[in-house]
Amino acid sequence: MSTDPPAPRRAILVVGAGDATGGAIARRFAREGYVACVTRRQADKLQPLVDAIRADGGEAHGFGSDARSEEEMVALVAGIERDIAPIEVAVFNVGANVRFPVTETSARVYRKVWEMACFGGFLMGREVAKAMLPRGRGTLLFTGATASLRGRDGFAAFAGAKHALRALAQSMARELGPQGIHVAHPVIDGAIDTEFIRSQFPERYATRVDGGILDPAHIADAYWMLHQQPRDAWTHELDLRPWMETW
Amino acid sequence: MSTDPPAPRRAILVVGAGDATGGAIARRFAREGYVACVTRRQADKLQPLVDAIRADGGEAHGFGSDARSEEEMVALVAGIERDIAPIEVAVFNVGANVRFPVTETSARVYRKVWEMACFGGFLMGREVAKAMLPRGRGTLLFTGATASLRGRDGFAAFAGAKHALRALAQSMARELGPQGIHVAHPVIDGAIDTEFIRSQFPERYATRVDGGILDPAHIADAYWMLHQQPRDAWTHELDLRPWMETW
Amino acid sequence: MSTDPPAPRRAILVVGAGDATGGAIARRFAREGYVACVTRRQADKLQPLVDAIRADGGEAHGFGSDARSEEEMVALVAGIERDIAPIEVAVFNVGANVRFPVTETSARVYRKVWEMACFGGFLMGREVAKAMLPRGRGTLLFTGATASLRGRDGFAAFAGAKHALRALAQSMARELGPQGIHVAHPVIDGAIDTEFIRSQFPERYATRVDGGILDPAHIADAYWMLHQQPRDAWTHELDLRPWMETW
Amino acid sequence: MSTDPPAPRRAILVVGAGDATGGAIARRFAREGYVACVTRRQADKLQPLVDAIRADGGEAHGFGSDARSEEEMVALVAGIERDIAPIEVAVFNVGANVRFPVTETSARVYRKVWEMACFGGFLMGREVAKAMLPRGRGTLLFTGATASLRGRDGFAAFAGAKHALRALAQSMARELGPQGIHVAHPVIDGAIDTEFIRSQFPERYATRVDGGILDPAHIADAYWMLHQQPRDAWTHELDLRPWMETW
Repeated sequence: MSTDPPAPRRAILVVGAGDATGGAIARRFAREGYVACVTRRQADKLQPLVDAIRADGGEAHGFGSDARSEEEMVALVAGIERDIAPIEVAVFNVGANVRFPVTETSARVYRKVWEMACFGGFLMGREVAKAMLPRGRGTLLFTGATASLRGRDGFAAFAGAKHALRALAQSMARELGPQGIHVAHPVIDGAIDTEFIRSQFPERYATRVDGGILDPAHIADAYWMLHQQPRDAWTHELDLRPWMETW
Repeated sequence: MSTDPPAPRRAILVVGAGDATGGAIARRFAREGYVACVTRRQADKLQPLVDAIRADGGEAHGFGSDARSEEEMVALVAGIERDIAPIEVAVFNVGANVRFPVTETSARVYRKVWEMACFGGFLMGREVAKAMLPRGRGTLLFTGATASLRGRDGFAAFAGAKHALRALAQSMARELGPQGIHVAHPVIDGAIDTEFIRSQFPERYATRVDGGILDPAHIADAYWMLHQQPRDAWTHELDLRPWMETW
Repeated sequence: MSTDPPAPRRAILVVGAGDATGGAIARRFAREGYVACVTRRQADKLQPLVDAIRADGGEAHGFGSDARSEEEMVALVAGIERDIAPIEVAVFNVGANVRFPVTETSARVYRKVWEMACFGGFLMGREVAKAMLPRGRGTLLFTGATASLRGRDGFAAFAGAKHALRALAQSMARELGPQGIHVAHPVIDGAIDTEFIRSQFPERYATRVDGGILDPAHIADAYWMLHQQPRDAWTHELDLRPWMETW
Repeated sequence: MSTDPPAPRRAILVVGAGDATGGAIARRFAREGYVACVTRRQADKLQPLVDAIRADGGEAHGFGSDARSEEEMVALVAGIERDIAPIEVAVFNVGANVRFPVTETSARVYRKVWEMACFGGFLMGREVAKAMLPRGRGTLLFTGATASLRGRDGFAAFAGAKHALRALAQSMARELGPQGIHVAHPVIDGAIDTEFIRSQFPERYATRVDGGILDPAHIADAYWMLHQQPRDAWTHELDLRPWMETW
């Protein structure tokens, strides 16, 4: 695999392109010549990201899209493949990190967390895999978290969804790897440099200058690295964690 | 904890009381003096189990109930607590073992497998936990499988649901253990003596005489043992596997 | 499998029969009719245990023996098999829980911890397996700890030895299970009721009345249960943990 | 962290610099400007590697050294630090993959496998960490394998040593990470392009043209990537596996 920008137009699809990780991944791949197709529930919130990629000389398309809707995900993937470019990379990055005692977790919340953080990943993965399989190549990346590996007090819903997403990634890797599709599951174990951490955990945020919280651009570097791996040496799972993190 | 039958009436709830494991668990606890409250989608299929328990001198009540329905599960638990006896033990044993290539897995199947094998467990666990917490005691048992631990080719849906159920059990154990509720997750790793194995895998079934497939009565013994553990030495997870199984 | 005491004389070998867990296991099996063969570095420290078993109507033999010495372990197993009774169960229970920063861990300590907590287990397991294989039956139990599953600050030596012991138990289970030998690895995750905890962690010890620390007799019950499992439903690994433990 | 070659002279130490992985790692880092210090039991076997690095314009030093000897490892690290350059990266890559039924594993073999594949890693890691800690930086890489994660029939000795090495890497990561030392444990899960595979598994080797076995140069790329990670996003563990591998 070459590190040159792909000569034919190729797209990356980022489902859940928020202000931090998802956006940084889109920008990283756009810089490498990929057409960035980014989604989020509310399309208008994508405009700054699309503008930034374009200002950087890249190509970007924003889609207001509900990852939990089969109809919308089928149409999204088909539309990109038909109108924009073959999807060479797809990233599922929808979060739903909520904390409730299990006895106070409503059925609505439990289901919604699974729909957002897992079911949407299944829909994206299945639709993109169908497009990739005849080409015998492509990369699928599902963003994991500490809760992907361990259940915890207050995290019955979130850990359930993340465990299920990990099982999806692992099942797809075993099934699609021998057909040429690289499926990986990076596990982000630590606070990310986001507005949420800045406002809610100021002491934690203060460690940022010293590398105490994850820089989304560095997460994006890891995703790019995974996509670049030659197929004799693929990684399925790796953790990303600040040096000072307790684990 | 005494091994005598509980003097006050106490109930065990088995959600998913099929012909093999769930039924054997209900019979085992009924023999120990527990009132067996058993559920299944189709109430009429429960009659042989209820009859068998009664013939054995036990007390049993069958409920046609859809574990995926919040309304039904709330009413089920409330009704047993009000009309029959406090639930001292609850077992979630609904299976949904299907195998499809991920690209041929419909959204309906993916969701249904999760609803049956995980969401129903959440509903049961939450409702029973609410009843148990004021009493500061009780046992919740969630049946796991090999797919609880590993994703696999063709098992994206089933492994996802079982991973999520394991995360539920682990989160509940960490949250409710210090409040006196014992939450455990036995992992059944091997074929069970069922009509399905008998008819579909006759060669495998032939190893039964030599202990090559799991006897549901022995699985039930393990569940009873878990319930009997004194609280200074609780088990959260254990595997059960025939001696000749390759793993 | 019957719970009756074995009609022919059968022995249990407990290597590392300290005052707490190992001793409790020996007493438990002796009560069930097994001849208890117990070892410890210093034979004289075994006398109270041997006396207690005999006072209880059981049969016990104490051996001052260094589990790290191949010569001693070979002779020990051969001697018991020849002079006392066939070894039906063997338990490896030698601990070596030390804590040092890795840069302050001497090569002597690192090696000794491995020799005590792992190499001795290999010697016992190999020698007893050789005796059991022609009989096509027997149980081998290797005591695990939290450090069997996770490395941790200050535990490079101890976690290394316990991880290696777990790999031994798992390799032996996969190799010897299909030959009729049940190999299990109980993981004790919490403080045990010992003189060490009593004197060094009095606050922790105070939770004993409420089940906050493990009662060695309850650990012994779990070992007995593992040995009693019918071979269609063997457990390889289970955890034992006080209800109020944080994990 | 910059990708420029380090301006001041910096060394990489590769313990176990065989013809495949270890040698490729040394060449990779030498190309980036690191002084390659490579060791092997027999110094004369290192000459081709040293020559190749020098022919490539790099600097290399070969050391005949027994990783299991504390005296030799202490002298090796001290000598490099004193006479050549500060060790910025150290890689432990000694293998000892043997397969024996557990009952046919001699105590000599069991101990030797541990000494080679684990104890040498402890000695290297401890000595290099002592040198790195005052500088508050450096990377320690311990090569893992499938046997690091799972015991298996015939692999009691090898899996034991690799599990223990993993526990070492994880304990050191948790202890030294917050002091600025990056400790990682790449897990190589598949056949590597070596003379051994070529001669012993010719059918497997034939998949090489299609990426069916790992290219040591690609493993080396992963090690370089790990060393280059900024400290807000360190990886502790990642797997490397050919796309067509069954796992």
